Amino acid sequence: MIRYKAIISYDGTDFSGFQRQPRQRTVQEELEKTLQRLNSGQAVVVHGAGRTDAGVHAYGQVVHFDLPQARDLEKLRFGLDTQTPDDIDVISVQEVSEAFHARYNKHYKTYEFLVDIGRPKNPLLRHYATHFPYPLTLALMEEALPDLLGTHDFTGFTAAGSSVINKVRTIKAAELRFDKDKNLLVFTFSGDGFLYKQVRNMVGTLLKIGTGRMPVSQIKTVLETKDRTLAGPTAAGNGLYLKEIIYEE
Amino acid sequence: MIRYKAIISYDGTDFSGFQRQPRQRTVQEELEKTLQRLNSGQAVVVHGAGRTDAGVHAYGQVVHFDLPQARDLEKLRFGLDTQTPDDIDVISVQEVSEAFHARYNKHYKTYEFLVDIGRPKNPLLRHYATHFPYPLTLALMEEALPDLLGTHDFTGFTAAGSSVINKVRTIKAAELRFDKDKNLLVFTFSGDGFLYKQVRNMVGTLLKIGTGRMPVSQIKTVLETKDRTLAGPTAAGNGLYLKEIIYEE
Repeated sequence: MIRYKAIISYDGTDFSGFQRQPRQRTVQEELEKTLQRLNSGQAVVVHGAGRTDAGVHAYGQVVHFDLPQARDLEKLRFGLDTQTPDDIDVISVQEVSEAFHARYNKHYKTYEFLVDIGRPKNPLLRHYATHFPYPLTLALMEEALPDLLGTHDFTGFTAAGSSVINKVRTIKAAELRFDKDKNLLVFTFSGDGFLYKQVRNMVGTLLKIGTGRMPVSQIKTVLETKDRTLAGPTAAGNGLYLKEIIYEE
Repeated sequence: MIRYKAIISYDGTDFSGFQRQPRQRTVQEELEKTLQRLNSGQAVVVHGAGRTDAGVHAYGQVVHFDLPQARDLEKLRFGLDTQTPDDIDVISVQEVSEAFHARYNKHYKTYEFLVDIGRPKNPLLRHYATHFPYPLTLALMEEALPDLLGTHDFTGFTAAGSSVINKVRTIKAAELRFDKDKNLLVFTFSGDGFLYKQVRNMVGTLLKIGTGRMPVSQIKTVLETKDRTLAGPTAAGNGLYLKEIIYEE
């Protein structure tokens, strides 16, 4: 068997997420269906690095899969790219050793979250940014953002009942910029792993801090108390983008 | 009757265009349905400044309509905005004199055209930019672009069989920029009026010049000969945006 690593992008709008689910349209299933066709009808299992939710987009999702023989890489990329639906695109395909695992090999993920603060909203971005038409003070969010940096127990920013036991993660970058032309806030987070809905809960909390309805210290409070009820609401999936995954050698 | 001018934006993806057509989903019909509801069931006719085609987007379409009584402007805007489908947004509503006509009053229109030159395409832009994955030389297009400026008979850039007799128009701005981050070419055109499919034919011609398959002088040739067959192919509607309309006092 030859192991392949592929970098893919997708528009999350018409998917119920990356991970295969019965009777739902998912990215994993579309990839597996196409690979099965390219593999003479033999089933292929696709492993994804990040399990994006319904509506969540990706520019740099990484997957791996095994095929029985070596293939021309560009032909494989082209076949996978053109035969998957047009809301998935395959950016690159490379051969990797059997030691490579898209999910379990150590890596850093970068997520972006887009917030449309225009009034009214931009209808062309309704699937691609979360609309937030309330008055925001950028400085409050910029002040709170660095509290997310470093190694913390992010229990307070993840959904209850998660099967993950160790909730300690490291965030090495947390940034915010304002695109004035497009009335867009762009949050960027990079870290060694993110818990279920963690980015969306962090953004929801930062936005609430930005409206003044939570104090600037709320991030610290949620980290220390590990109390999910003290965090802000979970932001919608349409503004979330899995931008890039970088693997450690 | 009170005349109102509204500026609206819409995602053209799920419309068959702006202008009402039987058995097709159109922006005009959605606006008129909503206005009829807001007008106690009495029909309202909406006049649009530009008749955008199927798939074509707008950030600054202008419409006018008449209502029997004066209304609170923000309430009217809010009602129209929230009760139209979510791929239409109403940016502003103002009262205008009965002399104002969205289409016939002298105005300048600005159009943008977005080309995704990435390989593979960006799936999140598949409805919002025209994919053009062929090698392009920016300098060739930049050289040809100024030939469009000024007052010309644009017969060669419009579809045959148009009912418009006078095809002389003035283009006062024609620009091209490259958004490197997004792999997007952005064409911008401003003028006193554009013929049917004129912008899309100009872009199709410029792209063909950019690939080297038409000479840089082709714009001049098409203008002088008025020969549609010498122009490039009509670019797809998904990359076209009606950006702004400015009326002369």
